[in-house]
Amino acid sequence: MTTEIRSNADGLEFKQFGKRYRKVDGDDKVTGQAVFGADFTAKGSLFAKIVRSPYAHARIVSIDTSEAEAMAGVEAVCTAADFPSDVAGDVDTGEVEIGIQFLANLIMGRRKALFEGHPVAAVAATDIHIAEEAARRIKIEWEVLPAVTDPIEAMAQDAPLLHEGLIATSLSGSADAPSNIAGHMEGGKGDVEKGFEESDVVVERTYRTALVHQGYLEPEAETVHWHADGRIEVWANSQGSFPLRQNMSNLLGVDVSKIKVMPLEVGGAFGAKNTPRVTPIAAILSQKAGKPVKIVLTREEVLKATGPASGAVVTVKMGATKDGVLKAAQSRLVFGAGGFPGSPVLRGMQTIFACYQPENSKVDAYDVVTNAPRVAAYRAPGATVATFCGESTLDDLAREIGMDPIDFRIKNASKTGDSNVDDEEYARIGIVQMLETVKASDEYNRPVKASKNGFPVGRGVGIGWWPCGIEISSARIMVNHDGGVDVTIGAVDLHGVRTGTAQVAAETLGIEPEEVYVHTADTEGIPYTGNAAGSRITRTLSQAVYKAGVSVIDQMKAKMAVRFGVDAEFVEYEGGNFYARDNQDSKVSFKEAGSLVTKNGSNIVATASNDPGMRAANGYAMAVADVEVDPDTGKVQLTDFTLFQDVGKCVNPTQVESQMQGGAVQGIGWALSEEYVYDDQGLMRNASFLDYRMPTALDLPMINTVILEEPADDGAFGIRGVGEPPIVPPPAAIGNAISDAVGVRMGRLPMSPERVFEAMKDSSK
Amino acid sequence: MTTEIRSNADGLEFKQFGKRYRKVDGDDKVTGQAVFGADFTAKGSLFAKIVRSPYAHARIVSIDTSEAEAMAGVEAVCTAADFPSDVAGDVDTGEVEIGIQFLANLIMGRRKALFEGHPVAAVAATDIHIAEEAARRIKIEWEVLPAVTDPIEAMAQDAPLLHEGLIATSLSGSADAPSNIAGHMEGGKGDVEKGFEESDVVVERTYRTALVHQGYLEPEAETVHWHADGRIEVWANSQGSFPLRQNMSNLLGVDVSKIKVMPLEVGGAFGAKNTPRVTPIAAILSQKAGKPVKIVLTREEVLKATGPASGAVVTVKMGATKDGVLKAAQSRLVFGAGGFPGSPVLRGMQTIFACYQPENSKVDAYDVVTNAPRVAAYRAPGATVATFCGESTLDDLAREIGMDPIDFRIKNASKTGDSNVDDEEYARIGIVQMLETVKASDEYNRPVKASKNGFPVGRGVGIGWWPCGIEISSARIMVNHDGGVDVTIGAVDLHGVRTGTAQVAAETLGIEPEEVYVHTADTEGIPYTGNAAGSRITRTLSQAVYKAGVSVIDQMKAKMAVRFGVDAEFVEYEGGNFYARDNQDSKVSFKEAGSLVTKNGSNIVATASNDPGMRAANGYAMAVADVEVDPDTGKVQLTDFTLFQDVGKCVNPTQVESQMQGGAVQGIGWALSEEYVYDDQGLMRNASFLDYRMPTALDLPMINTVILEEPADDGAFGIRGVGEPPIVPPPAAIGNAISDAVGVRMGRLPMSPERVFEAMKDSSK
Repeated sequence: MTTEIRSNADGLEFKQFGKRYRKVDGDDKVTGQAVFGADFTAKGSLFAKIVRSPYAHARIVSIDTSEAEAMAGVEAVCTAADFPSDVAGDVDTGEVEIGIQFLANLIMGRRKALFEGHPVAAVAATDIHIAEEAARRIKIEWEVLPAVTDPIEAMAQDAPLLHEGLIATSLSGSADAPSNIAGHMEGGKGDVEKGFEESDVVVERTYRTALVHQGYLEPEAETVHWHADGRIEVWANSQGSFPLRQNMSNLLGVDVSKIKVMPLEVGGAFGAKNTPRVTPIAAILSQKAGKPVKIVLTREEVLKATGPASGAVVTVKMGATKDGVLKAAQSRLVFGAGGFPGSPVLRGMQTIFACYQPENSKVDAYDVVTNAPRVAAYRAPGATVATFCGESTLDDLAREIGMDPIDFRIKNASKTGDSNVDDEEYARIGIVQMLETVKASDEYNRPVKASKNGFPVGRGVGIGWWPCGIEISSARIMVNHDGGVDVTIGAVDLHGVRTGTAQVAAETLGIEPEEVYVHTADTEGIPYTGNAAGSRITRTLSQAVYKAGVSVIDQMKAKMAVRFGVDAEFVEYEGGNFYARDNQDSKVSFKEAGSLVTKNGSNIVATASNDPGMRAANGYAMAVADVEVDPDTGKVQLTDFTLFQDVGKCVNPTQVESQMQGGAVQGIGWALSEEYVYDDQGLMRNASFLDYRMPTALDLPMINTVILEEPADDGAFGIRGVGEPPIVPPPAAIGNAISDAVGVRMGRLPMSPERVFEAMKDSSK
Repeated sequence: MTTEIRSNADGLEFKQFGKRYRKVDGDDKVTGQAVFGADFTAKGSLFAKIVRSPYAHARIVSIDTSEAEAMAGVEAVCTAADFPSDVAGDVDTGEVEIGIQFLANLIMGRRKALFEGHPVAAVAATDIHIAEEAARRIKIEWEVLPAVTDPIEAMAQDAPLLHEGLIATSLSGSADAPSNIAGHMEGGKGDVEKGFEESDVVVERTYRTALVHQGYLEPEAETVHWHADGRIEVWANSQGSFPLRQNMSNLLGVDVSKIKVMPLEVGGAFGAKNTPRVTPIAAILSQKAGKPVKIVLTREEVLKATGPASGAVVTVKMGATKDGVLKAAQSRLVFGAGGFPGSPVLRGMQTIFACYQPENSKVDAYDVVTNAPRVAAYRAPGATVATFCGESTLDDLAREIGMDPIDFRIKNASKTGDSNVDDEEYARIGIVQMLETVKASDEYNRPVKASKNGFPVGRGVGIGWWPCGIEISSARIMVNHDGGVDVTIGAVDLHGVRTGTAQVAAETLGIEPEEVYVHTADTEGIPYTGNAAGSRITRTLSQAVYKAGVSVIDQMKAKMAVRFGVDAEFVEYEGGNFYARDNQDSKVSFKEAGSLVTKNGSNIVATASNDPGMRAANGYAMAVADVEVDPDTGKVQLTDFTLFQDVGKCVNPTQVESQMQGGAVQGIGWALSEEYVYDDQGLMRNASFLDYRMPTALDLPMINTVILEEPADDGAFGIRGVGEPPIVPPPAAIGNAISDAVGVRMGRLPMSPERVFEAMKDSSK
């Protein structure tokens, strides 16, 4: 593997950054000692099974729970009737939003089931086998309705209507009749028609992508204990303890102060675990039973009824002059939201042309409900699909005007101070630098290796943009009696947050990461912290840690001043030592000083949150993909793959690499093999990891990574986000590589063997 | 029950104090949902059994663990050889100290067993039955040695020597030959011989008391997980998470920062759970097995091998003039420490004459090792025995000079600014006020009710002093988004601490306790906090909460200033409302303000500890006991009992009452029925609650309580301690009541029927 850091970091020099400090939670995870949701069982816990709709669209005529309730061992049964019907408040589910009423109805279907697997009842019993049997004995009378899973079909006037009162909300007026169109948004600038007229070449293509799942290893698994005195404890499997607490408060009508969320280790989330799905069900069952209730989903439940990424239909039209000026870019994005409004189509709209500055642009975005599971965020939600469509079209356009695709991109690239379709000005952005780096790279310039099989080979590139999130993160630094440092954070650690935080705290305090112990607190233990989502944690948390660290040093200076017999302003801290300015020999190390100043019962502790005014940092990644295509089967084999990403400032290369590799591989799966297969009843036909085909190590070449550092212009260290951008460009780069290899433009994801084979067959006609 | 608060609290008026606010942890405890040590089982836990000495004194010739280790299901076996042999550091075990080497040897006997039940090996297995069987298969060759359990016998030159190198430490020089005398301390002032010469009456008596146990409901039960990366997690059954962490650090040679102690609910401790007993054993087994290890003791193990209170032999000599001047008081206290040095004899010395100012005094205190379990603190350690001896003698002296025993006490009482034998000046003290209150009380003046059985009846009083502890307590106050308040404390809640803290925080913040949520943190969650011991928590913690609360109000004022558009110094907080001084209509409640100022991502949080310079507050309690004595059997029936106690300021009368009642009942058990019975081999013959006789509700009258309030002169609210003083005077008062009823002075505890019967027989000779 080649990993390089190519830094343009303005001379920012840090002692602890760029080091491959070992993952602090690694030992526990590889030895099986870490406690994930399913590993935790509260004292006296009951075990619950959710009853789900076997139909994609059906009205609930009646539910008879009496036989289940009569079973020995069954301690609580619930349906939507047991949930508060009058819910209110803002919902925080990370990057993909949902109204609170819709969320309540998604968690437990009230009158209708809107997708296969939609929960409609649940049972808690003394063991899971009793709960499963009782779930089977709940008798539901259904009125089955016609289902629609394709968003374009769902937009049709005669389509089965999911929500009878749904009127599209729109930035540009509103529809007047109910439909499955939940929203229509428009953006852009200038006059695209004029732009196309001024173009020498215009390319227009339509793309279609399937629903895909995040494929996290760990199914949803949570325990809730609703105590007799009204307090609720949640052992959570969530990306954000505090947003989950707020959601639970809104959904259950209980004050947040009465709810304690304790995060357990999370085995993958990627955006999906921002949305509570089982927590409120476990809560209601616990309230009824008076005992803790644990729910662990099966893989089939996860695939059928949690939150995959939207399937979409996207049309892109672009025009340019022969000398490479992008005169106009237009797109119509239709995203399926699943059973309830709120697909990430707005994000698709925001990202599709974000890397460029077309002279004229227009984007129409449609959010459409379908009889599929309500979608959730999935790493840079909306961007992967949009970028695939945009970058495929752009590549064709470059080819048609006869320009190197990277040169064409550079010529039209977005720069600091430019605006996106939403009129938001870009903070410091290094897209041109990234394109130039790739253009000069060996990965882009060396010849594509010939196929051992004699198959056609090709190379493609793709670049994608994503705004790395902000929101609040909080941290507390406390000095122990041995001079060691406890750092407590509110962020759920999905991906090495504790490790990176140890380095950030060490950097700030001038000590070594081995002297720092980082822990994730529950919601009582630290001030508010948003979801571990949107590539935001390291960026925002590092500022909170920095602020707390500065306060800790100040407090220690004041206390050491007494020992040195000087005023606090004459105490220096440098190179890990406190000393009186007039006496260099007075040096006392941080560890010694920490021990000294806390020995008499004083405490050294500081709590801080990042500046709420921090702006989103631009994130962007570029992929260079080499493929060979089997002409007889259409199978695409990735033979070489390199991901370039600008992370602003790299704290830990090992962690950054694995984010880049993990994201890239998910993008590759999306590109080549993953999809939800629905039958005409709207039932999912491949709800297992045998049939839902994620790439394995055997399918992949080494994923090479090149880390770029163009520092962000706010935050403590110039850190951008890392987690999301890597998933964005792979399908685009691979589509472009296929085109380079066999001369066909793939219009569908995944670019599975049969589709590539069919496309080659069509193009040779 | 009569409960009264008779306040002399200097006009201190508090809104939340004196209210019977419900116990916040009550619901969980009565519904069985609270998690105590035995309720908690970590994922993948092993279960351990300790192998103990069957002899009171024996040399370990060899230990063969091979058969145990070979058993299927056994995952670790340990002996002292597996523990670090070179331990160092200070030990914090609350009020009764032990050297670290001795503590290590107490926890796991190295060369010798020094008492029956002394641990010498332990086994961890996949279930407790396998562990028990494996423990039986550990073959130990013993060289049995003669045992000595009586401290006076142990002092003899020809007594079996427990520690071959033990040379007495002494304030007044040191012995030169090894003996079982671990320490000899002297104190006093003036010339007692001269004082006795000047006395009209001199009384001298010798008393003998037995070992008694705290009798906590919950046996020691802990889980330790020594992780592969070196971190240690402890789910603790301890009175102090931080001292336990420090002790574990010293005993195991691991940095405190690597150790996380998580307190579970504790089912009674009373001083005994300051000392780690099973935690290091579980740790070593966990380290060897690589899994969490849980140890739960049986009642027999608790009685035989945890830390009871010392048995003692005490001689008291007092002289007074006819007009009631206490000319001289002298005592020789010999306390049995059990197998290792460190009985609370120093506390006995400090407390025996503390309520009085004899003109001349002399106290000799001997700490003596015996082949009994190493003693621990037990509510006001040393004071109950010393007070029984002192107050019995004083009462006889008063009777002999013909003076009312309370008048005699008042005449010689200690007052603010007086000194004790240790030359420590008393902070504000209200012993005279207490004596005068009792003297004027109906409880003291009404006639003793005649016995229905025609038995002799009598009334006695006793007063006892105890210095209520100090040390550090820490608290954090955090305002939630709903305006609710989280208060996090480091103190283990043995007795209503969360409830009282909710009231203290509400008082400080000007809100209601229902809006305050109090939680006990683990050692990562809050700065250092000492043991919940020494009646110190409410006194010190209330100051920490007060300091944090003042900071919270200041922070909120600053943020509300922005909203009011005025400078922060013009924002007032009064009656639960913030307002701009120039605009009374701007009132915003704490709850609304809390919600407002945290909504934008700001946090409101403050952490504080009490002033390390706080002085010990004087605690004192007085009992009035009425008894009837069956002349045929010697059985003493308590017919009426009232405890008077000065708590400085009463936060929650219900909590204070239950402390007073609980302590009084333990003192009554000590007085009348509880004792360790040893045979001549040094083996305990009554190691069960059937044979070790604690009083039940059926044995007792209602325990009436009168709460006095003479505020302490430091701390935020004038709060003294509550927990310990109530146990001090009951044996004295009951002994004096028996003397009043049947004219015999009981010289032994417990004053069991056979002893009273024998004493009456002897006196009638």
